Amino acid sequence: MKLWTGRLPGGMDASAARLNSSLGFDRRLGRWDVEGSKARAKAIQQAGVLSPEELNDVLRGLDQIGGELESGQFAFHESDEDIHTAVERRLTELVGEPGQKLHTGRSRNDQVATDFRLWMMDASQRLSRELKDLQETLLNRAQTDFGVILPGYTHLQQAQPILLSHWWLSYFWALQRDRERLQDSLRRLKVLPLGSGALAGTSFPIDRGSLSQELGFDHPFPNSLDAVSDRDFVAEFHFWASLVSVHLSRLAETLIIHSTTEFGFITLDDSYSTGSSLMPQKKNPDPLELIRGKSGGIIGRMTGWFVTWKGLPSTYDKDLQEDKPGVFETCDQLEAILPVFSGLLATLEIHEDQMKAALAPGIYATDLADYLVKKGVPFRQAHSAVAQAVRKAESLGISLSMLPLNEWQSIAPAFSEDLFDLFDPRNAVDQRAAIGGTARDAVQIQLTDAWKSWAME
Amino acid sequence: MKLWTGRLPGGMDASAARLNSSLGFDRRLGRWDVEGSKARAKAIQQAGVLSPEELNDVLRGLDQIGGELESGQFAFHESDEDIHTAVERRLTELVGEPGQKLHTGRSRNDQVATDFRLWMMDASQRLSRELKDLQETLLNRAQTDFGVILPGYTHLQQAQPILLSHWWLSYFWALQRDRERLQDSLRRLKVLPLGSGALAGTSFPIDRGSLSQELGFDHPFPNSLDAVSDRDFVAEFHFWASLVSVHLSRLAETLIIHSTTEFGFITLDDSYSTGSSLMPQKKNPDPLELIRGKSGGIIGRMTGWFVTWKGLPSTYDKDLQEDKPGVFETCDQLEAILPVFSGLLATLEIHEDQMKAALAPGIYATDLADYLVKKGVPFRQAHSAVAQAVRKAESLGISLSMLPLNEWQSIAPAFSEDLFDLFDPRNAVDQRAAIGGTARDAVQIQLTDAWKSWAME
Amino acid sequence: MKLWTGRLPGGMDASAARLNSSLGFDRRLGRWDVEGSKARAKAIQQAGVLSPEELNDVLRGLDQIGGELESGQFAFHESDEDIHTAVERRLTELVGEPGQKLHTGRSRNDQVATDFRLWMMDASQRLSRELKDLQETLLNRAQTDFGVILPGYTHLQQAQPILLSHWWLSYFWALQRDRERLQDSLRRLKVLPLGSGALAGTSFPIDRGSLSQELGFDHPFPNSLDAVSDRDFVAEFHFWASLVSVHLSRLAETLIIHSTTEFGFITLDDSYSTGSSLMPQKKNPDPLELIRGKSGGIIGRMTGWFVTWKGLPSTYDKDLQEDKPGVFETCDQLEAILPVFSGLLATLEIHEDQMKAALAPGIYATDLADYLVKKGVPFRQAHSAVAQAVRKAESLGISLSMLPLNEWQSIAPAFSEDLFDLFDPRNAVDQRAAIGGTARDAVQIQLTDAWKSWAME
Amino acid sequence: MKLWTGRLPGGMDASAARLNSSLGFDRRLGRWDVEGSKARAKAIQQAGVLSPEELNDVLRGLDQIGGELESGQFAFHESDEDIHTAVERRLTELVGEPGQKLHTGRSRNDQVATDFRLWMMDASQRLSRELKDLQETLLNRAQTDFGVILPGYTHLQQAQPILLSHWWLSYFWALQRDRERLQDSLRRLKVLPLGSGALAGTSFPIDRGSLSQELGFDHPFPNSLDAVSDRDFVAEFHFWASLVSVHLSRLAETLIIHSTTEFGFITLDDSYSTGSSLMPQKKNPDPLELIRGKSGGIIGRMTGWFVTWKGLPSTYDKDLQEDKPGVFETCDQLEAILPVFSGLLATLEIHEDQMKAALAPGIYATDLADYLVKKGVPFRQAHSAVAQAVRKAESLGISLSMLPLNEWQSIAPAFSEDLFDLFDPRNAVDQRAAIGGTARDAVQIQLTDAWKSWAME
Repeated sequence: MKLWTGRLPGGMDASAARLNSSLGFDRRLGRWDVEGSKARAKAIQQAGVLSPEELNDVLRGLDQIGGELESGQFAFHESDEDIHTAVERRLTELVGEPGQKLHTGRSRNDQVATDFRLWMMDASQRLSRELKDLQETLLNRAQTDFGVILPGYTHLQQAQPILLSHWWLSYFWALQRDRERLQDSLRRLKVLPLGSGALAGTSFPIDRGSLSQELGFDHPFPNSLDAVSDRDFVAEFHFWASLVSVHLSRLAETLIIHSTTEFGFITLDDSYSTGSSLMPQKKNPDPLELIRGKSGGIIGRMTGWFVTWKGLPSTYDKDLQEDKPGVFETCDQLEAILPVFSGLLATLEIHEDQMKAALAPGIYATDLADYLVKKGVPFRQAHSAVAQAVRKAESLGISLSMLPLNEWQSIAPAFSEDLFDLFDPRNAVDQRAAIGGTARDAVQIQLTDAWKSWAME
Repeated sequence: MKLWTGRLPGGMDASAARLNSSLGFDRRLGRWDVEGSKARAKAIQQAGVLSPEELNDVLRGLDQIGGELESGQFAFHESDEDIHTAVERRLTELVGEPGQKLHTGRSRNDQVATDFRLWMMDASQRLSRELKDLQETLLNRAQTDFGVILPGYTHLQQAQPILLSHWWLSYFWALQRDRERLQDSLRRLKVLPLGSGALAGTSFPIDRGSLSQELGFDHPFPNSLDAVSDRDFVAEFHFWASLVSVHLSRLAETLIIHSTTEFGFITLDDSYSTGSSLMPQKKNPDPLELIRGKSGGIIGRMTGWFVTWKGLPSTYDKDLQEDKPGVFETCDQLEAILPVFSGLLATLEIHEDQMKAALAPGIYATDLADYLVKKGVPFRQAHSAVAQAVRKAESLGISLSMLPLNEWQSIAPAFSEDLFDLFDPRNAVDQRAAIGGTARDAVQIQLTDAWKSWAME
Repeated sequence: MKLWTGRLPGGMDASAARLNSSLGFDRRLGRWDVEGSKARAKAIQQAGVLSPEELNDVLRGLDQIGGELESGQFAFHESDEDIHTAVERRLTELVGEPGQKLHTGRSRNDQVATDFRLWMMDASQRLSRELKDLQETLLNRAQTDFGVILPGYTHLQQAQPILLSHWWLSYFWALQRDRERLQDSLRRLKVLPLGSGALAGTSFPIDRGSLSQELGFDHPFPNSLDAVSDRDFVAEFHFWASLVSVHLSRLAETLIIHSTTEFGFITLDDSYSTGSSLMPQKKNPDPLELIRGKSGGIIGRMTGWFVTWKGLPSTYDKDLQEDKPGVFETCDQLEAILPVFSGLLATLEIHEDQMKAALAPGIYATDLADYLVKKGVPFRQAHSAVAQAVRKAESLGISLSMLPLNEWQSIAPAFSEDLFDLFDPRNAVDQRAAIGGTARDAVQIQLTDAWKSWAME
Repeated sequence: MKLWTGRLPGGMDASAARLNSSLGFDRRLGRWDVEGSKARAKAIQQAGVLSPEELNDVLRGLDQIGGELESGQFAFHESDEDIHTAVERRLTELVGEPGQKLHTGRSRNDQVATDFRLWMMDASQRLSRELKDLQETLLNRAQTDFGVILPGYTHLQQAQPILLSHWWLSYFWALQRDRERLQDSLRRLKVLPLGSGALAGTSFPIDRGSLSQELGFDHPFPNSLDAVSDRDFVAEFHFWASLVSVHLSRLAETLIIHSTTEFGFITLDDSYSTGSSLMPQKKNPDPLELIRGKSGGIIGRMTGWFVTWKGLPSTYDKDLQEDKPGVFETCDQLEAILPVFSGLLATLEIHEDQMKAALAPGIYATDLADYLVKKGVPFRQAHSAVAQAVRKAESLGISLSMLPLNEWQSIAPAFSEDLFDLFDPRNAVDQRAAIGGTARDAVQIQLTDAWKSWAME
């Protein structure tokens, strides 16, 4: 029986009823539906709708339902349209008439918005913790790999040598922004819809302030229409997840490239690799590819939500029911990805020699230009001079470090023998000593700051 | 046991293995994996890899597996990475060594592309049929409601009277284009990947032409790299579904507006309506809203697929595994929506009187301008004259049809008494008699053409 | 001449050069390129790269360039690849050798990230102000229209009567969240990339802390790789704009429906309406439709940015250049839309009588159920009883308020004569007096709170 | 003056008028607006609306306008709302009253749909030709580079050796599908809206069949409501462009990886490369990155269009005006990209030695397994045996080809001396001789077929 069978006693067409049912996904809100109902039962008892005895019955019934849901013993009925219907139906079975009073002045519109926010408050905490674990892995890597140097790339072309620790840390900071964003959106999430009824508020003297506190919200919605129709928090979640997934995807993409035979910078642990059904030699970075690939779906679900939501006029329309499946799926995927990525990063093997061997002499060109600058040559001329040397070496078919001094001097007289000292990764790295640079000292400071930021909140 | 346990015998980290497993969704390909395997077994027997007896064993085994999958009795193992692994594992259990030969020269790369295409060939047929049913409902409505006139809108403002049948038909044609598009994409779908191996082709003399024919494809892929990496058909399916869903959403949106108290043009049957848990009077068009709302998710999954796919270099990457869940979900949603929409349309009630009553006199303004044109007034002047009359009536606070003749004539002397005959919906409709217009005769012809187009293919 | 002509003196293919040039859009960063360059010139003078005289020359030259850009007299060259090249080229023309020193230790990678952030800091302030103006219009409307009652809708079906002011305020709060989000993202925007060089930091002793302060940032980036590759702020801007645009679109959509002939709740001022080239009577809400329509493009540009960005490995790739056109276009569109929406809202005409007349008696059904609850009937039974009355009236073909008392009592004996008092919009509204409800008192308090929130920051 | 000034003589608010104007982009339709108007003038002359002399005047006037538009001498007025208004206004200036008659029975709704389709028919032809040029470049490369072998990759890990020509051809076929899709969508594009009026058809006896022929369409729209509201062709264009852009992006991505120092397979010509403002050695593949990056915007515009369009009820709403800017921008970008990509591909340098050197011995593992199969070992056992050898070599720290015979035989006795012959790229390639495989003979056949497919239509 639907909650509105009195109005349309004929019942729905079977295929329409299936389309309409949200139990397939919203049963996940069960725990929060029970929590919200308990808090609300107390509030309407205060408002005189329930007697103290009835309240006791209702609380007892709801606790039992909570237990049944948790243990998987709750028996859903074919006709339970959604989790709210199922809970109210069961409550009435268990406690009788008081169960029929629970919905007084409540609508599924304010109820589902409340349940969903409670679920998301909980999920956000979990995700934040898992993100923090991944950050910890990055910080540990930065510590363990300290001193290792590899080529830094722009345009995927070798640019300047960098510390591997510096590179790991660059991802730490991106994830730190993600955690900040999650905090920011919590302030907007923790606003209570309950007490807004279908759209216009409630005619029972419910103390929404206490209700809000009881359920862990910061304060009630100041406007009932906004309360039932606001889905900004859904969009914020999707956006947040999309940003996280892009950060993870970009890291995965780079690691995939670094683990090719041709780069050879890293080897994934066997426990984070797969093989081929056909090619016996294969060892493939499937987990990284799936992390990268799932980002598409996460972004797609954000887009999809915007499409659905954007087309709606004011207040509650049934289309809003589509807000949940996408959020649940994205949350599940992030929870599947985050620990895998942590484990993969913690166990991968670094090939320091291979990284060092990869450094092509051209990578010191900026240092050579800076060298001229320090001797008084304007930068633009210094840049041009070194570029000329690069082309000279190219045309001679030799590496830049093999170009003889006289060639250098014929290009710029300021060059002298000590220019050859610059072909040294450690020197190249340590020179970039300003805050945020790749010098060992600077990275050491950065690492300390990163641990501090990480520990906060 | 994975198909590649020989290479990485240590096994995967448990959470990585869960992330990696596609069995949750690709078991749906089971039937096609069996079909593809049977055809391929015959082909490699011809190529000398299997003896006739072995082929018999393999075919028998595969048939049994097909039966087990269909009846739900197939027992998946924890370690079955995907449907292909499960089928090969079970086959080897059933028939022993010949089962270990089946994968000769095959890779899961060409296998999964084949399975997925077979699945989609089947799904396309089903969807086309369901779409055709919905079109039939529209044609029946156009026939039943023939003669009913309602306001036509642009910018949601009343524009000109139209036949309701004309309006139903406008959606028929949109869906007809959808069916055409599906046909077009079939030509690109029915190209066989099998025989392309992992990426480079196969070294066994398999007759890919016969294989293609056996499985209902038009011809084999001319390039093995393209065969395993092409996912155009996935994008085409998503795009096709997105277009369909937009057509359905736009129709649903208009019906939602037409079923408001304020418009009052239609009433949904109770069996396609829902009520409210709080407000006893409510009768809500939930199925229409869900049809409208689900379009967002469908478009989002298309976008998501593009995001994933766009980021990949050449040939097969594991990210491609993400091609299936979105397609399956979209297909399921369309199959849930289409029959509901048919039923809803077939049962809704039309309020002809309400439609007629809604026609505001201003809706005949174009006819009034055309009237002047037919008396020799250049259109731009005629337009301006009628606009003046509209403003005059507005300023007098009367409806346009109440404006006295002398006012009309003071604006344009060409007006005479017969102008008042134009305030007639039937006349307004029947005037627009050129091909494609809303005149009853034209719509009758259109309806006949529509039935013809519908019946084809 | 490009800044790297020394390396590739042959020059680019003409069509490749056109594809590569970003001057078409990044010239808009001109002002900020000059500001950033001035601050940096001071910093490298402190670091000993420029003499005090050279610094003076450079500052003078940059000021002149700033003037030329502002007045539109700056002459771009065909070969100026981007705004940075153009400014450095012109500076060298104006002041000679010191101009060639400016780029010492700087890369366009940290430069463009800095310019773009400066631009966005400025744009954010402008947009926040325009949003605040729109909010003010909503607050003024809420004040002016106080007391007007209209039907509230869910599922676009009449639900319960609400105060028009309550409805206006629901949009105020959505925009208030938008302003909060903009504030939140500013914290992540105001982090300085300059001094990060191409990716690895700088080897000149630049005081990045002072530089940051000089340019109005909160602090420098702690990691140079992150500094040049972070585009979270681009995504945050797009997301923010998308949310704003959805809020505006939903309001526009509702107003379009409210301004139909059938609803007749509002009339747009002529100055915010258009007509038809063909139909003389037409008065169309084009500005509302464009506001609604442009939301799609805004969301699309967000998606587009995610697609581009998601596919990239670590650090700077040229693809990042695509970050700007979309942001500029979205910003321009919001700046075009916001004042139009303010003007349109301030001038539209409310039809209070029409709103009142639209209230169908069924809209009081919840009040009737609450009435029974207050007499002790459990809510679920009360709901069912009123639903029965609704059906009874429907079957008798009369309106709910016309149903005679005995019919009511035969359904539920608790009904008595005073039930008819409930068919009163004012009563229906004023009952919902809890915080956030639509009662006049509650809305008055809400309005005061809204003004306070609005004024802050 | 607007075409509807008679109705709303007060004029629009200035900022609303700016928002409303589409001249900024739709002036690009000028040529087609003139063509469409000429054809229609003839049709309404036949219908008796214009005299033969008036028709002459109108045609002369329109020709002059066409000339003015082409030469850039057409003077747009501030008040010209769109290109249609501008053309009609100018025509009336030039020829007087007959100009005021041209719009008889026409609406901008059917006019703009016609103009836009004409534009797109033209653009499609251009794009198809440019795509064909790019395909030709790929075919030429396949021919020139015939015989060159490089590692084929899956998961970016070495899989099996392939012919470079085979790889080039894989992209040829993807683009061939793109050209087919364009053909398919032409059938739906070439349907004439003109004669549908605002939405209901026209009351003048216009011969829409002739009109259709005159303008190069296949046939007129069978339903006037559909004619003015159908924007499937816009979505189809965006989708088509998105697919093309993904194909180009994936090719670009792979070339970027192949041109790294670490892979070293190709070198871009200097004329398709850029340098760095800071790092003198840099040679960056900017054009490839921009091709890859612009794909995001193209996909984003498709999404954006779906968002806008999906939210609309039936028939024409002003939001549809947003259909054009995105299409124009995407078309421009493809036209900028395609010739650059052709030029880049035609001029890049292949490093055959480097490709060969990159082939790691493990790449022959499948051949080794197939070897065992041919000796009667079931494939799954053969796979496992070779995998064991791979691990053995790994554990000994030697390459697979260095593993001594006795080790091989201790794993599988079927191995004999001739196994070492398999470590040969030419053999590995030529074995895969079935249709679509990478064997030289098969690729030769493929190439011939490709040229044939290319030449058709």
